[in-house]
Amino acid sequence: MNRLVLQAQILELTAIRYTPAGLPALDLVLKHESQVDEAGAHRKVALEIKAVAIGDVVRRVQALGLAGCSVFTGFLSAQKQGRGTVFHITGLES
Amino acid sequence: MNRLVLQAQILELTAIRYTPAGLPALDLVLKHESQVDEAGAHRKVALEIKAVAIGDVVRRVQALGLAGCSVFTGFLSAQKQGRGTVFHITGLES
Repeated sequence: MNRLVLQAQILELTAIRYTPAGLPALDLVLKHESQVDEAGAHRKVALEIKAVAIGDVVRRVQALGLAGCSVFTGFLSAQKQGRGTVFHITGLES
Repeated sequence: MNRLVLQAQILELTAIRYTPAGLPALDLVLKHESQVDEAGAHRKVALEIKAVAIGDVVRRVQALGLAGCSVFTGFLSAQKQGRGTVFHITGLES
């Protein structure tokens, strides 16, 4: 089980590239801000996270455009270089 | 919306500390490995992610112990220092 659901805004968005398998791919940076409950207290949460969309979902992400907002669903993986995490977007909730 | 559900193993686990509000807190590193579907293809996913548990959930996380496995639920936030992300564990699925 590895599932992230994140309401976020597109902060950066590259042009479409193609994977070695010939699939379209988009590289993004997403920005999230919200309030969450933790240990019985409200707290503000903000983060920026690198994201990638591959395949059919690319068209829907591209249609949102820069500064576009959505609820993105997908999974986390490690960055190829470095110790950070990348959010792989596999769907959008409307 | 900011919700992560991650099956993972506890790779590192600190002693309990206390927040300024007096709540118990645990700092962890979690390791995840799985196979996911992306753009119609299976792919292996592996990642290590910093995590923190605060409040009532601390006791349950501590009971898992080092190398313990569970499905952790919670949300992502930015690290206080640096540009990485931290997984705030707010619950465990059994």
